Amino acid sequence: MTDEGCPWVSFVVRKTRLQIVQDPSLNYEYLPMMGMKSFIQAALELLFGKHSQAIAEKRVGGVHTVGDSGAFQLGAQFLRTWRKNLKTVSIISCQKEQYGLIFQDMGFTVYEYVIWNPKKLCTDTSMFFEAMEHTPADSILVIGNIIDCRFSKNQWTKLMSIIKKKQIFPFFDIPCQGLSTGNLEEDTRLLQYFVSLGLEFFCSQSLSKNFGIYDEGVGVLVVAALSNRNLLCVLSQLMNYVRALWGNPPATGARIITSILCNPALFGEWKQSLQGVVENIMLIKEKVKEKLRLLGTPGSWNHITEQSGSHGYLGLNYQQVEFLTTKKHIYVPKSSRINFTCINNRNIDYITQSIHEAVMLTEG
Amino acid sequence: MTDEGCPWVSFVVRKTRLQIVQDPSLNYEYLPMMGMKSFIQAALELLFGKHSQAIAEKRVGGVHTVGDSGAFQLGAQFLRTWRKNLKTVSIISCQKEQYGLIFQDMGFTVYEYVIWNPKKLCTDTSMFFEAMEHTPADSILVIGNIIDCRFSKNQWTKLMSIIKKKQIFPFFDIPCQGLSTGNLEEDTRLLQYFVSLGLEFFCSQSLSKNFGIYDEGVGVLVVAALSNRNLLCVLSQLMNYVRALWGNPPATGARIITSILCNPALFGEWKQSLQGVVENIMLIKEKVKEKLRLLGTPGSWNHITEQSGSHGYLGLNYQQVEFLTTKKHIYVPKSSRINFTCINNRNIDYITQSIHEAVMLTEG
Repeated sequence: MTDEGCPWVSFVVRKTRLQIVQDPSLNYEYLPMMGMKSFIQAALELLFGKHSQAIAEKRVGGVHTVGDSGAFQLGAQFLRTWRKNLKTVSIISCQKEQYGLIFQDMGFTVYEYVIWNPKKLCTDTSMFFEAMEHTPADSILVIGNIIDCRFSKNQWTKLMSIIKKKQIFPFFDIPCQGLSTGNLEEDTRLLQYFVSLGLEFFCSQSLSKNFGIYDEGVGVLVVAALSNRNLLCVLSQLMNYVRALWGNPPATGARIITSILCNPALFGEWKQSLQGVVENIMLIKEKVKEKLRLLGTPGSWNHITEQSGSHGYLGLNYQQVEFLTTKKHIYVPKSSRINFTCINNRNIDYITQSIHEAVMLTEG
Repeated sequence: MTDEGCPWVSFVVRKTRLQIVQDPSLNYEYLPMMGMKSFIQAALELLFGKHSQAIAEKRVGGVHTVGDSGAFQLGAQFLRTWRKNLKTVSIISCQKEQYGLIFQDMGFTVYEYVIWNPKKLCTDTSMFFEAMEHTPADSILVIGNIIDCRFSKNQWTKLMSIIKKKQIFPFFDIPCQGLSTGNLEEDTRLLQYFVSLGLEFFCSQSLSKNFGIYDEGVGVLVVAALSNRNLLCVLSQLMNYVRALWGNPPATGARIITSILCNPALFGEWKQSLQGVVENIMLIKEKVKEKLRLLGTPGSWNHITEQSGSHGYLGLNYQQVEFLTTKKHIYVPKSSRINFTCINNRNIDYITQSIHEAVMLTEG
């Protein structure tokens, strides 16, 4: 969000949009069902890196989808038909994710694990492994936002052995690459690890948020397969579902993104704008923390700046959230996870003062 | 298609696209799940007329979908869950339609009836009523392109009595309003009749073709209900499916179309451009007919100009089509139904000469 409360749009996106519209040579024909080929290629290179071995081996591919809902819908339809042994879905994330319903509607049994520890005020790696223990064999494992989970080498090995033993099918969610840490590679660390081991998985890659094209819903269902042959089989089956779901994906968003990703100068500008956004978010968090410190609000507020990304937990309890909602008209969800980009110079004093009052009242 | 073989884009669309991109006040926030409200309103007024009683009574509404596949997918999902008595689908059209698979995949039994009579060389009203006789009770009836069917007053009455007796749920397909006859009202004649009787039905309304925005897939699932209360119930259920299908529909196409439909000057320009396209198609058909006459090709070729719309049957048999395909590299489907807009000044002589040869060879 900008200071004016409007959704952020990268300047380079505005520029590219204008260039595209003025191009008289553009052909407005239907896209293929698979989507825009150059867009998928560029998106894969963004996700796995330009020199990714998996791309060179042609065992990763993708289908251009309508946003991340479309990617989950498409992937879930495929798994329901072609992996009939997978009957349950475990969703592990530091926040409540919305994909549960998609799987539930298709008849999967869904377990959701939010691995935010409200006592320790951090994303809790041990909660992650507890969730993994509870996950039944032959499950789909949706790995949401766990960027703040730092695994030790032992934990990595443990994770892989559970996945192999339980025959778990991973389904990643990469909703806003680059907007968590400001670093494109860092944000896909976990995924990189899986692909380097040659595992097969799906990944929902959304490009609406990190380009600021919310109104277009540009996504890719990324398929990592064991071999190129395997990949082609999966993609060809996916086409049948696409035909019934939306036929041909919309082009505008994909066209803008491809133009930026395939042009080194524009790509550089975009990367910088991402960093700018992330620095800005961190600045807001620092300011909130500092203001609470100056107000003398009880408790350490380090957890605010220790969380990556635009959203984060304030670490308030239900009673405190209720005070904010009913007395201060600050509508925070019960979990106290908020979008920090909605805090700006015009409302920060009111918000921090209100948090202070909430904490003082309930502490007392 | 233009003379250069590119998809046609209305000039007014190009102009509007440019205006929209240059508008700094535009907000690129997610659209609501229902879609762009002003777009849905404008699309409904286009379909039913600005002064439609059904709109005034608020018993028609719509959901903004990703193209016509999206509209059929959404409608079919709703009917499967909420109208469990409907087990079969009859698709009646002058051509083979692609929606059969969507319904089939969901477990419906699908019957398809193509009501082109290859002997009489016309869309055959009696074939339509035969198909209606075969349609089981409690069916969904998908009414595709039957614009060339002219019903007598008795036939209208008969149609309505069958629909009531068999408890049939109609599902219209309006893929390119205005591109059949050049007249927006004339192209939705059948639909108008149904709505004036207060019947409930679904309609897939696509706006990609008549605006020349093929790459965006802009559609609406139109709901005509018995009452406003009824309508709101249906729309609220549809939202659950949208959340899982694509979340929020893409905005670009809808934004362009809304700008045109809501501005009387632009609307006038667009209407005129539609008429231009239709006149152009008719001109091509006339030329083909005239050239075949001059070549002395046996048979009457009036059926070419008697069919409305961009596509039409050449009225060739399998042997003649095979000759065109194998000897002349003119790839015509077995039905001999072709897209006349692909014929231009550069290829018309070759095509008509080839048709002539095909007919001469097989007649002799």
